[in-house]
Amino acid sequence: MAGHTRRAFLQGLSSSVVGLAAGVGLGAQNGVRIDARKLRERIEKLSVFGRPAGGAFADGVSRVAYSDADVAGRRFVMAEMKAAGLQPRIDPAGNIFARRVFPRDAAARPVSASEKPILFGSHIDSVPNGGNFDGDLGSLGALAAIEALDAAGVATRHPLEMVVWAHEEGFAFGRGLACSRIVAGQIAGGDMEAVWNGMTRADAIRRIGGDPGRIHEARRPQGAHHCYLELHIEQGGTLERARTDIGVVEGIVAIDRYEAAITGFANHAGTTPIPERHDAMLAAAHLTVAVRDAVTRAPGRQVGTVGQIEITPNSPNVIPGFARLSIELRDLSAQKLVTMMDDIRARAREIAATTRTTIEFSQAMAAAPAVATPEVQSAIERASGSLGLSAMRLPSGAGHDAQNMALLGPMGMIFVPSVGGVSHSPKELTSWEDCARGANALLHTVLEMDRVG
Amino acid sequence: MAGHTRRAFLQGLSSSVVGLAAGVGLGAQNGVRIDARKLRERIEKLSVFGRPAGGAFADGVSRVAYSDADVAGRRFVMAEMKAAGLQPRIDPAGNIFARRVFPRDAAARPVSASEKPILFGSHIDSVPNGGNFDGDLGSLGALAAIEALDAAGVATRHPLEMVVWAHEEGFAFGRGLACSRIVAGQIAGGDMEAVWNGMTRADAIRRIGGDPGRIHEARRPQGAHHCYLELHIEQGGTLERARTDIGVVEGIVAIDRYEAAITGFANHAGTTPIPERHDAMLAAAHLTVAVRDAVTRAPGRQVGTVGQIEITPNSPNVIPGFARLSIELRDLSAQKLVTMMDDIRARAREIAATTRTTIEFSQAMAAAPAVATPEVQSAIERASGSLGLSAMRLPSGAGHDAQNMALLGPMGMIFVPSVGGVSHSPKELTSWEDCARGANALLHTVLEMDRVG
Repeated sequence: MAGHTRRAFLQGLSSSVVGLAAGVGLGAQNGVRIDARKLRERIEKLSVFGRPAGGAFADGVSRVAYSDADVAGRRFVMAEMKAAGLQPRIDPAGNIFARRVFPRDAAARPVSASEKPILFGSHIDSVPNGGNFDGDLGSLGALAAIEALDAAGVATRHPLEMVVWAHEEGFAFGRGLACSRIVAGQIAGGDMEAVWNGMTRADAIRRIGGDPGRIHEARRPQGAHHCYLELHIEQGGTLERARTDIGVVEGIVAIDRYEAAITGFANHAGTTPIPERHDAMLAAAHLTVAVRDAVTRAPGRQVGTVGQIEITPNSPNVIPGFARLSIELRDLSAQKLVTMMDDIRARAREIAATTRTTIEFSQAMAAAPAVATPEVQSAIERASGSLGLSAMRLPSGAGHDAQNMALLGPMGMIFVPSVGGVSHSPKELTSWEDCARGANALLHTVLEMDRVG
Repeated sequence: MAGHTRRAFLQGLSSSVVGLAAGVGLGAQNGVRIDARKLRERIEKLSVFGRPAGGAFADGVSRVAYSDADVAGRRFVMAEMKAAGLQPRIDPAGNIFARRVFPRDAAARPVSASEKPILFGSHIDSVPNGGNFDGDLGSLGALAAIEALDAAGVATRHPLEMVVWAHEEGFAFGRGLACSRIVAGQIAGGDMEAVWNGMTRADAIRRIGGDPGRIHEARRPQGAHHCYLELHIEQGGTLERARTDIGVVEGIVAIDRYEAAITGFANHAGTTPIPERHDAMLAAAHLTVAVRDAVTRAPGRQVGTVGQIEITPNSPNVIPGFARLSIELRDLSAQKLVTMMDDIRARAREIAATTRTTIEFSQAMAAAPAVATPEVQSAIERASGSLGLSAMRLPSGAGHDAQNMALLGPMGMIFVPSVGGVSHSPKELTSWEDCARGANALLHTVLEMDRVG
C-alpha cells in the first residue's frame, strides 16, 4: 500500500461511480450513519451473558472463552447477525465470519466478486470480571456498520466481511493461543492438545462449533483481505485526557516479558546482622525501582511493569532467600525494549553485588510490534474528519486480534475513549455517544478503504 | 538482684562451705565437667524423632510441637531423665520439669529445701525443616549438667530444677502461645479453644500429657526461682566471626511487627501511561528500601526485615492495585524501634505521594525487650573464665522461653557459636566441642549462681 495515496485518491473518486451504479451517490454515502440506539441495546443485551448473578450492567461480565456464557453470547450475536440478513459461519478455529450480501437479491451478481474483502470486527470473550465494551463494541459496531450500509442501500466495490474472533483474551489457553493466530497461520496443530480446566483445546474449539480436525483450513493466505479494521475501546486514558473523539492507532506495541529469579539466603530475621544478609526481597525491591527508572529515563510512551512477585519462604520473621518477579516492557519500537532491558540488566548487576544475591533473567514472552498501515491510518483520519470528529494518533499498549491480521495484510484500528482509562474491570466504561462515534468512524473508514486500491 | 554484687561475692564464698558439707570441696567443684560424648550421643538420638524419611542427622528435623515426632521426642528425653535418676513430671501446660534429688537417699533431708530453685533448660520442639541444635542443646545440656554434679557428688544450696518447655517455636498456635508464657501467667484460659490443624489447643496440650482444665495451676508466682538459665545456640554469626566460645546474652530484643497495606489502582500494564499509574508494587518496593535505610541510618545492632509480601492481582500484565507487606523491627531498646518506625512512616508519606497510593500501617505484634539480669551475666562470665573460655556480651535477636521467665525473676542466657550463623534450617550446626563448652558453661553458671544470693 506504500506510496499509493495519490492513486487511492483517484480510485476513491472512481468508487463513487460504483456507488452510483449500486443505487446511491457519494452524498448519500457521506450521510449514512449507524443506528446508535440499536447498538446500545445490543451491547446491553449481550452483557447479560456472563453477568454476575443478581448483578446489573455496571457489574461487568465474566465471559471467558469457551465458557457457557461465551457459548450463549456467541449464539446471541449470531442470531442478531441473521436478523440483519447475514449468514454467519464458524470456521474450524471457532471464529464467526459473515459476508455482507448486497444487493439482497441472490440472483444478482455481487458487484465486487473479483475484489478482496474488507474484513472488520473484534471479539466478545472477556477476562474474568471484565467490562462490557472490550471487544463487544467492535463486534457489534461491525454489525451496525453493515446494517447502516444496507439501510442506506450503499454498495461497495469490495465485499464486506465481519468477524467475531474466538478466544481473544487468552484466559483459556494463554494469550498466544488467540484464534486469530490460527487464521494467521501462527499455531501448529500440536497445540490442540493443550489442556485447560480439564478440557483440551480441541474439545474447547468443538464446544464453540469449530472443527479441530480441519484446523489448518482456518488459515488464510497473506493478501487474503483488502484490509482488516477493528474498532475498540482505548483501555487507557489518553483520548479522555486529550478530549479527543477518535484514536488512530499507529500500531500495537511490542511486548518483552522476563522473569527475574533472585537467589539470596533465607535466615533468621532476628539473629542475622544487617551486613550478613543476602536478602532476596530487598534485591527485588531495588530491581522494581530499577525497572521504573529504566522506563522513564528517556522520553516516550514506553511502559514497564513489575506485576507479579513471589518470595520464599514469605514469613515476617525470615529473611527472604528467594524471589521471583515479572518484568514486562512495551513499546512500538522493539529496539527500545532491548535498550531498556540492557539498562535493567546493568542495574541488576549492581543490585546483586550490593545485596549479595544473584539475579538471573529468562525471557518468558516476546511479541513483535504490529505497525498499522499508514494508508489505513489516513483513511481513519479522513473518515473522522468527514464526521466532524476530532482524532489523534496513538499506539495501542494492549494486544489485539489486529496484530495477527497485520501478518496477512493492511491493518488499522480505531479507538474510542475509555472513561478514566479503566479496562479489564467491571468499571470499564465508554459513553454511548462515543460508542456511536466509533461505530460511525468504522463505517466511514470502510467506505474510505473501499475507495483505496 | 540489683546492687547485690558485693554481697553475692561474700555469699559465694560461704556457699563453698555448703559444698564441703555435702561431700566435696571447692576444688572438686571447679574440676567438674559434663560428659561430652554422652551429650553428643543424646543429641544424635533425639534427632531421629522428626527426621525426614531416609535422611541423616544433617538432613535436620521437623519436630513441630504436638506432632507425633514431638510426642516421641519428649518420651525419649523423659526416659533419659529417668535413667539419670530424675523424676520428670508434666505440668498442666505440658512443660516437663524435674528437680534434682541429691543425695539420692530419699530419707536424707535435701540440703537446700528452704532455698528457691535454680531453673534451667530449653525446648525440644522445632520449626518445620529445622536443625538439631536449636533447643535440643539447652535441654540435653541441662540434663548433662545435673548428671555431672551427681557424678562428682557436688551438692548445691539451691535446689536444681531442669525444664523442657513445650511449644517454644510457635509453629502450632503462634509464637505468643509458647507454654512458658502460661507458666509466666501471660495466657488466659480462653486461648485454650484456639484451633490449629483441626486440633484445639486444649486437645494439643492433652496430647503431650498436660491438663487444660487445670491450666492455671501451671502458673508460677513471681520470685518462684532463684534464677532461670538457658543454654542456646546463637542462631547468628557473631560469635563465629569473633572466634569467641561463649556469648553472654545482654537481653532478648524487643520486636515490633507491622503490616503495611498499600492501595493503588489495578489497571492494564500496556495501556496505562506511566504518569497515570497508581502502582502498589512500586510503592512496596520503595517502602522495602526505606525500611533498610531506616535500620541502617544509625549505628548499632538493630535489624529490620520485610519478610512477607502479597500483591493483587499478581499478574505480569496488570499494574498491582494492592500490596500488603510485613515490617519487623528488633532491638534491645524499644525506644529505638519507635524511632525507626517514625522514620519509616515519614518516608511512607513521601512514597505514597510520589506513587499516588495510600499506605496504612497496623501493628501486628509487639514484644517487650527482656533484659538479662546483670548479676547473671557476670556469673556466666566468671564461669566461662574459670573454664578458660573466651566470652563476649551480645543481644539475642531471637525470642526464647527465657524472656517469659524474665517476668518471674532473674534470667540469663548462654550462647554458643552457630556455624555460618545459620538457624531454622537443616544446615544449622554447632560443633560438638562448642556444644560441650556451652554445657560446661551452663554447669558452672549454675554453681556460680548457687553462691549468689
